[in-house]
Amino acid sequence: MHIKNTWYVAAEPGEVTGGRLVARTILNEPVVIGRTESGKLMALQDRCPHRFMPLSLGRMIGEHLRCAYHGACFDAGGACVTVPGQDLPPQNARVRSYPLVERHGYIWIWMGDPALSADLGSIPGFLFRSDHPEWDGGYGHFESIQAGFRLINDNLIDVTHAEFVHPESFGCEQLRQYRNPVPGDEFVAGRMTYTSGAREITYRMRSLAVSEDAPFYRWMVTQGLKRDSFPQPIDFDMQVDWAAPSFTSFVLNARPAGVPVELGFKVCNMHAVTPESETSSHYFYRSVKDFGDADLTTRFMAGVGAIFSQDQPLLEAQQLRVGAQDLFEQRPISFAGDMLQLKARRMLKDLEEAESAPAR
Amino acid sequence: MHIKNTWYVAAEPGEVTGGRLVARTILNEPVVIGRTESGKLMALQDRCPHRFMPLSLGRMIGEHLRCAYHGACFDAGGACVTVPGQDLPPQNARVRSYPLVERHGYIWIWMGDPALSADLGSIPGFLFRSDHPEWDGGYGHFESIQAGFRLINDNLIDVTHAEFVHPESFGCEQLRQYRNPVPGDEFVAGRMTYTSGAREITYRMRSLAVSEDAPFYRWMVTQGLKRDSFPQPIDFDMQVDWAAPSFTSFVLNARPAGVPVELGFKVCNMHAVTPESETSSHYFYRSVKDFGDADLTTRFMAGVGAIFSQDQPLLEAQQLRVGAQDLFEQRPISFAGDMLQLKARRMLKDLEEAESAPAR
Amino acid sequence: MHIKNTWYVAAEPGEVTGGRLVARTILNEPVVIGRTESGKLMALQDRCPHRFMPLSLGRMIGEHLRCAYHGACFDAGGACVTVPGQDLPPQNARVRSYPLVERHGYIWIWMGDPALSADLGSIPGFLFRSDHPEWDGGYGHFESIQAGFRLINDNLIDVTHAEFVHPESFGCEQLRQYRNPVPGDEFVAGRMTYTSGAREITYRMRSLAVSEDAPFYRWMVTQGLKRDSFPQPIDFDMQVDWAAPSFTSFVLNARPAGVPVELGFKVCNMHAVTPESETSSHYFYRSVKDFGDADLTTRFMAGVGAIFSQDQPLLEAQQLRVGAQDLFEQRPISFAGDMLQLKARRMLKDLEEAESAPAR
Repeated sequence: MHIKNTWYVAAEPGEVTGGRLVARTILNEPVVIGRTESGKLMALQDRCPHRFMPLSLGRMIGEHLRCAYHGACFDAGGACVTVPGQDLPPQNARVRSYPLVERHGYIWIWMGDPALSADLGSIPGFLFRSDHPEWDGGYGHFESIQAGFRLINDNLIDVTHAEFVHPESFGCEQLRQYRNPVPGDEFVAGRMTYTSGAREITYRMRSLAVSEDAPFYRWMVTQGLKRDSFPQPIDFDMQVDWAAPSFTSFVLNARPAGVPVELGFKVCNMHAVTPESETSSHYFYRSVKDFGDADLTTRFMAGVGAIFSQDQPLLEAQQLRVGAQDLFEQRPISFAGDMLQLKARRMLKDLEEAESAPAR
Repeated sequence: MHIKNTWYVAAEPGEVTGGRLVARTILNEPVVIGRTESGKLMALQDRCPHRFMPLSLGRMIGEHLRCAYHGACFDAGGACVTVPGQDLPPQNARVRSYPLVERHGYIWIWMGDPALSADLGSIPGFLFRSDHPEWDGGYGHFESIQAGFRLINDNLIDVTHAEFVHPESFGCEQLRQYRNPVPGDEFVAGRMTYTSGAREITYRMRSLAVSEDAPFYRWMVTQGLKRDSFPQPIDFDMQVDWAAPSFTSFVLNARPAGVPVELGFKVCNMHAVTPESETSSHYFYRSVKDFGDADLTTRFMAGVGAIFSQDQPLLEAQQLRVGAQDLFEQRPISFAGDMLQLKARRMLKDLEEAESAPAR
Repeated sequence: MHIKNTWYVAAEPGEVTGGRLVARTILNEPVVIGRTESGKLMALQDRCPHRFMPLSLGRMIGEHLRCAYHGACFDAGGACVTVPGQDLPPQNARVRSYPLVERHGYIWIWMGDPALSADLGSIPGFLFRSDHPEWDGGYGHFESIQAGFRLINDNLIDVTHAEFVHPESFGCEQLRQYRNPVPGDEFVAGRMTYTSGAREITYRMRSLAVSEDAPFYRWMVTQGLKRDSFPQPIDFDMQVDWAAPSFTSFVLNARPAGVPVELGFKVCNMHAVTPESETSSHYFYRSVKDFGDADLTTRFMAGVGAIFSQDQPLLEAQQLRVGAQDLFEQRPISFAGDMLQLKARRMLKDLEEAESAPAR
């Protein structure tokens, strides 16, 4: 089941420039997304009401999207405005249109009841970090990961997998000590603290004087200091913000041991997962940092893309074993480190139930 | 639903020469088609009754088709005539055979009740054009287009898509004025006239003094006159004959403006669609012309093949959106230009119903 | 339906050396097979009980298999023994483990009731031939043939297909005369004799003074004698042992005509088919011979691999036509030469029924 009355990332802004159209299935519905000549965003059901041709095979002509097959034109609201060779289009010729907004650099879509779309509250504020003018980075996405968004959520909320899946970057043995989070909103050395709300969770961790481990944090210090290497101990902090249904931000702060946290080098990795179907997802990420030049940015984006892509084969293999039924209906064993992940799953269940409640 | 008691194109004649066998699923039934050493055509269910091996993996030996697995041989009527190592084959060892005829250059098959196959009336006479000794051309086919035959029919009956799908060849803005056909059997400038019977439709269109549009018609005049270009106005006529379930012939006549139609250069494109399954089709075409030499014929066939292949990705994308249910059960919007297409759909429905009526 | 309470070949021994893991679906169950550092074999359900990640993506660490995702470790009995970052694993954290044994060079698995696995009687004794110290050869397998094990059984029990499928090797017209087997346990020239038990069949055939046919037998004599060719008549014997559910051994003996059988050159091809699903199979083979040097062995293994691979496309084409329903529920015609094949099918049916009987 999908949560429909919430905003999802539909596209990167660069995907719809120059008249380009994006065809993307979102919550099982085929959608075409584009920008008109005057700059207005448009998202329509990707099926012409005439003969069911995907509108994404057509072309943006001025303010209208023209079907590739018989040239019928549709406006941003989904109304058919012209049919070549006839005076007026049929009155009932229209397709569903979807509300769109631009926030934090992404194009967001509302797949649920349009009457409820005015509330932008479901777009998590913590993604503001990607707007910071002094942070530099880029976008990336995986078009269709064959794993449901819940499995990807589980993966992102869970730092303990990094030791095994990303041993040469994010993974380090220090993460093990964070398997037993305690309530709190401070950074405490060697502990994980967390806070949570109705649809969000934040947790924080701090490791001090790490001498040989934590490769990615060490890389941050080395690059931030413009050194060739930095073998001395480092301190690092991580803050993870998660919001339902599927947004996660990681702020990493790394510095030479003993240096105040305010002087640390920072990276922010933001992840937005948009369900394609029950068992497949679009995975958008944005990574920014506050150090290094444009050349480093290029290498940085290649690097994070490579790290994130380590999860894809695992997630897809996991989905194959999970099958069509939800994982948690199949009685998996849970570990101590799964506490926040289970909390997030419960929030999703509450949101689903609220949405399907008859009283609404 | 398929119409079974009618003749379909099963193969081009050149496909079964030299002992070659054609394996083709027709109306959901796997069929093997071949020609015996003496030249007799044979179409059998493509499944040996012994261990269900496809007979198309076997080989034509004299007058018999020999199974690849255990060497059992079948005659053109489907009877098993020999089993290696045993005196007589089992009495009930036979496979279904299908009536075949050769007409207008094609091998035709009857998938329905064999008792009704003597009536060749469902092979449309208008395909005689491919037999004309002074017209030169060739064959082509698309083996398995992932679109049902009704969608391909819709496409062929509908000239208005050419402006958008084939803008550099058949497409031209002149075709728009023909969206409102009127009854009649004459060529009338700037109008489309049509006539129809129980299972066929013919329509005609004439455009005079076309100055810059209609690229394919202009190409016909240029090539017919053996010029490098012909920028002056041209006149052109098109006559389209359609017959249920899935045959269409286009006769194009193009000439310099003012030249009598009898002196025009002519092209005939014939299309025969054979259902593979409810949502896939074999698409045969034959194109001939009455001008140019053999070298032009080669280029002409490459050109028409390229134009026809522009439809395939659209038809397949459309079929994906239509899905398993018939398009017209899903309440599409129709345009004025769809009138003849809808008439053809109704004829197909009548034929289907007549065939499934209990009284028959 | 599969027979579960019987031993199947799970892997070649060389597949699990050096810490390598084999992921293989057997009787529809995904299994991971490996060998611990101390040499102990391990077969577990290929699904971590925590988040359902395939354990085959993990790694053997000492005596334990470690999950790729969160590092949980499992012992050969399927118990979760450590979870990183927590003192004790959850008590119910375990996966199913499967009994394994090594016999005749293969790793065998028991997919049924473990309580019944002590009886090794279902591992056919006739495979001892692969243990013979003076016979030299090798292993091969086809990972996932898209054909059910019954169709492969039919193929292996049936020598008459060789004339048509392997005409340049095993096939020869002499095999035809063996289509009518008679009871008996002797080799009789020009006849096929057979004996059978509750779950096994043996048949024998002898051809004398074959002058130009039987290419593989002739190759054996040529190679055994270290000649370039041997055009004179040869004698040959074949003994085929089959045991339910899916084991077949062919012992071939070829010699110059008139030479005593004891002096013949011998080849033994052993085939073990392990069901993957109802319609797909793992096909293991082992071939050995008692003549020639190591270089000949290499060529011999390449040759038999090429011959066995001639059956795969036929078996897969056959399975496509047979579909999901069992072949024999679809009333195929049988030939005289199918007698032993039908006998084997009946034995399988009896075993299935015994296994599913309520009294057990």
